Amino acid sequence: MAEHTVTMETTLELLLEEKKYATIRDILITMNPADIAGVFDGMEESSLPLLFRLLPKELAAETFVEMESDAQELLIRGFSDVELNEVLNELYVDDAVDIVEEMPANVVRRILRQADPQMRKEINEILRYPENSAGSIMTTEYVSLRPDMTVGEAILRIRRTGVDKETIYTCYVLEKDRTLIGLVTVKDLLLEQDDDAKVTEIMEQNVISVNTHTDQEEVAQMLSKYNFLALPVLDTENRMVGIITFDDAMDVMEDEATEDMELMGGMLPSDKTYLRSTVWDLFLHRIPWLLLLMVSATFTGMIITNFEGALAAQVALTAFIPMLMDTGGNSGSQSSVTIIRALSLGELEFHDLPRVIWKELRTAMFCGTVLAIACFGKIMLVDRLLMHNEEVTVLVALVVCLTMVLTVMVAKLIGCSLPMIAKKLGFDPAVMASPFITTMVDALSLLVYFGIANALLPI
Amino acid sequence: MAEHTVTMETTLELLLEEKKYATIRDILITMNPADIAGVFDGMEESSLPLLFRLLPKELAAETFVEMESDAQELLIRGFSDVELNEVLNELYVDDAVDIVEEMPANVVRRILRQADPQMRKEINEILRYPENSAGSIMTTEYVSLRPDMTVGEAILRIRRTGVDKETIYTCYVLEKDRTLIGLVTVKDLLLEQDDDAKVTEIMEQNVISVNTHTDQEEVAQMLSKYNFLALPVLDTENRMVGIITFDDAMDVMEDEATEDMELMGGMLPSDKTYLRSTVWDLFLHRIPWLLLLMVSATFTGMIITNFEGALAAQVALTAFIPMLMDTGGNSGSQSSVTIIRALSLGELEFHDLPRVIWKELRTAMFCGTVLAIACFGKIMLVDRLLMHNEEVTVLVALVVCLTMVLTVMVAKLIGCSLPMIAKKLGFDPAVMASPFITTMVDALSLLVYFGIANALLPI
Repeated sequence: MAEHTVTMETTLELLLEEKKYATIRDILITMNPADIAGVFDGMEESSLPLLFRLLPKELAAETFVEMESDAQELLIRGFSDVELNEVLNELYVDDAVDIVEEMPANVVRRILRQADPQMRKEINEILRYPENSAGSIMTTEYVSLRPDMTVGEAILRIRRTGVDKETIYTCYVLEKDRTLIGLVTVKDLLLEQDDDAKVTEIMEQNVISVNTHTDQEEVAQMLSKYNFLALPVLDTENRMVGIITFDDAMDVMEDEATEDMELMGGMLPSDKTYLRSTVWDLFLHRIPWLLLLMVSATFTGMIITNFEGALAAQVALTAFIPMLMDTGGNSGSQSSVTIIRALSLGELEFHDLPRVIWKELRTAMFCGTVLAIACFGKIMLVDRLLMHNEEVTVLVALVVCLTMVLTVMVAKLIGCSLPMIAKKLGFDPAVMASPFITTMVDALSLLVYFGIANALLPI
Repeated sequence: MAEHTVTMETTLELLLEEKKYATIRDILITMNPADIAGVFDGMEESSLPLLFRLLPKELAAETFVEMESDAQELLIRGFSDVELNEVLNELYVDDAVDIVEEMPANVVRRILRQADPQMRKEINEILRYPENSAGSIMTTEYVSLRPDMTVGEAILRIRRTGVDKETIYTCYVLEKDRTLIGLVTVKDLLLEQDDDAKVTEIMEQNVISVNTHTDQEEVAQMLSKYNFLALPVLDTENRMVGIITFDDAMDVMEDEATEDMELMGGMLPSDKTYLRSTVWDLFLHRIPWLLLLMVSATFTGMIITNFEGALAAQVALTAFIPMLMDTGGNSGSQSSVTIIRALSLGELEFHDLPRVIWKELRTAMFCGTVLAIACFGKIMLVDRLLMHNEEVTVLVALVVCLTMVLTVMVAKLIGCSLPMIAKKLGFDPAVMASPFITTMVDALSLLVYFGIANALLPI
C-alpha cells in the first residue's frame, strides 16, 4: 500500500512539472477518494489547489472529506466562494460538521456563509450536541417512508430521493410528527414479490434506536452487536432526527481503542496520527503524566529513606527491590488492562465488582504462589549456589517470597478495583491503568517488604 | 441494557415454570437475535433446549449464531439430526465455520455429516485457510452478476436469489471463469433510471479486493478506510471466492484491539470474555509473562549487588532508584504504546524508523530536561530544605537529574524502535510493550545511574 502511494506521488509531481493535466486527471479518476487523499496529503502544499481542481465535482468532495484537516484548511482558504459552495453541497451533513469542528473560527464563518440555508441549519443543529454524543456524529440525510406507502411506492421514492442520502439501505417509517414506527430494508423491499403490499406489513416494528445524548462508544458497540448498517437517533421527544452509519461506528471504535491505549500508556489522548504530530505535540501529551508520576514516586523514595537502617543492616535486601516492584507493577497492569477493556466493551458493570475481586484474588493467589516458588528456587540456585552471595540467607529468601505473594495480591486487587470505581465515579477507567497503578503498587510493595523484613530478620 | 436483560431472564424463568410457552414465544419474537442470545446465555442450561425450540426457524438460527460456544455445543448435542440440519441450512457459511472452529471433534463430525453437500464443501474450503486470514473469515454467499446483464435483469436476479446472501447491496460482476471485472451497488442499480442500461456501463471497474491470504487486520482497516460494506476476496488465480462484510470487520477490529491491549498489559491473548474466563484461564494467560519478567528482573538485582559498595558509601542514592526506574519505564511505555498503535492502524511502516527515532529523541530531550529540572527543584526543596536530609548533596541531585535525562532518552529510543523491529522480523509488535520495555529500561537506567555516580561522586 505505502509503496504504491510513494510512487504515485513522484509520478504526479513529474506530470505536474510537465503540465500534463489531462493525464493527471485520467490517473486520479481511476482511484478511490481515500487513496487520492492519501496521495494528496503526501504532496507539496503548493500543488494541492491545482490538483484538487482537476478532480470532477463529486470525486473532489469525496476526496476532500478524506484529507487531513490542515490540507482542508489550505484548500478552503484558496477556494472562491462558488467553489466552496460547490464542495459543500456535495458533502453529507455529518462530514461537513466534522470539517467545521476542525477549522479556525474565520474559516467556519466562511463555510457557514457559503452553505445552503438548509445545510447551514442542519450543521448548526448538530454542532449544538455535546462532544462524543450520538447527536454530534449523526447525519440528517436518511430515507423516510410514510406508513401508508406500498412497497412499489417506497421503491419509487428511494429511486427519486436516494441520491443525496448517506445510506438508502435502511429506510425509516415515520408518522407525520416524525415519530419512528418501524424500519424496512431495501432487501425486504426488493425481496417482497407483491408491489402493492403495504410498507407497514413488512416493516420491523421493534426498532432499536439511540438518543441524541447517547455516548458514541455505546452507539458503536450497539452497531457492532446487532450488525446493523445504521441506527436511528431520536430526540428527547422521541422524534427521529438522524442516523449513524456503520462507517462512523468503525471510526469511533478505532478512536476509542486508541484513546484507551494512550491513557493506558500514560499519555493524554491525541487526535493526530503519529507522523502528523510535532515533537511539541508529543511533548505536551506526555509530560503531564511523567511529571505527576515522578512526583508520586517520591513516596517510594521516602519509604526507602525511612528504612535506610534496615537496608544497611541487611544489604542483600536492596538487590530485590526492583524485582519485587516490577512484578507488582506487572501483576497490577495485567488486571487493570483486562478490566478496562472489559468495561469499555460493555462486558462488565459496577455491580460485578465483588465477583471480579473474588476472581482476581484467587488468580493472584495462584500467580503469587508460583512466582514465590520460582523466586525461591532462583535465589537458592543463582544467588547462593552459583554466585556464593553469603548475605542472601534462607531467611532473606523467605522474606522476598512472602513479599512476592502479598504484593501480587495487593497489585491485582488495586488493578481490578480502581478502574471500576473510576468508571462508577464518572471518570474514564483507562486513566487508572498501568503507570498509575504501578506507582501505587511500588509504594505498597515496599511497605510490605520492609514490614516483613522487620518482623523476620535481625534488623 | 443490562438491567433489562436481568429482568427478562427472571420473567422467562417464571413463565417456563408455569409452562406458558405461547407467551414466551410471543415475547421472544419481538426481540433481536443478539438480545435473545444475551438472555439465553444468562439462563439455566437445562431450560435452553426447550426455549430454543420455541423460536421460529430463522430467528432460531440467527440467535444460535450469537450465543456463547458452550451453549451452542449443549444445544447441538441435544438436537436431533433433522433439527441440526434445519439450523445449519439457515446459517451463513462464515457463521457455520465460526461455530465449527469452536466445537470438539465429535461435534464437528456430526455438523459436517448433517450439513448439505454444498455447504459441507464450502465449510471445508474455508477451514483450509490459515487462521486470521481473509479466507478464514469470508463468506461464499454473495450476489454475482454477468457482464451482459441489464440493470433490470440484475434487479430481477437480486430479487430471485438475494434471500440467501449475506449482503445484496454490493453485487460483483464476474466473467464466466469467475474473474472479477467490476462491482455495482444496489444504490447504483436503483438510481439508474434506464432499466435497459448494461451493468457494465454503470459498474465500478477499479475494484479494491483482498487475497485469501491477506491478514484479517488489514482487511478490517481497508473496510474502515474505504467505508465499504463488503470487500471481495480473490484466490491466487484472481478468481473471486467470497466476500468479507463490514460486521465481520468490526468484530476483527474489536478483537485485534483487545489482543494488542492484552499483550501490552503483559498477558497472552484470550478469546473469552472476562466473566466467562475461569480463574485457571486467567492464571494460565498471566503467569508466563510474570515469570519471564521476574527472571529478567534478576539482572537489575545483579547490577545493584555489583554496586553495593557504591550504595553503602552514598546511602542517599538508593532512595532515588524507584523514581528513576519508574520514570524510565513510563517514558518507554509512552513511546512503545504510541508506536504499536500506529503500526497496527497502518500509519507507520518500517522505512519510517529513522524519522520516528529522530522525533522520539527530540521529544525525549524536552521531556528529560523538564523532568530533570522539576526533579532538581523537588530534591532541593523537599529532601534538603524540608526534610533536612544531609546525605542528599547538590552533587547527588546532579547525578540523579543527569541520569533522568539519559534514562528518558534511552527509554524512548528503545520504546519506539523495538516494536518496529519486531514487526519487521514478523512478530506482533504489541509483545514489545510496557512490561518488556520496563524490564530492559530498568537495567539500563541503573547502569547509567551507577556510571554517572561513579564518575561524579566520591565512591
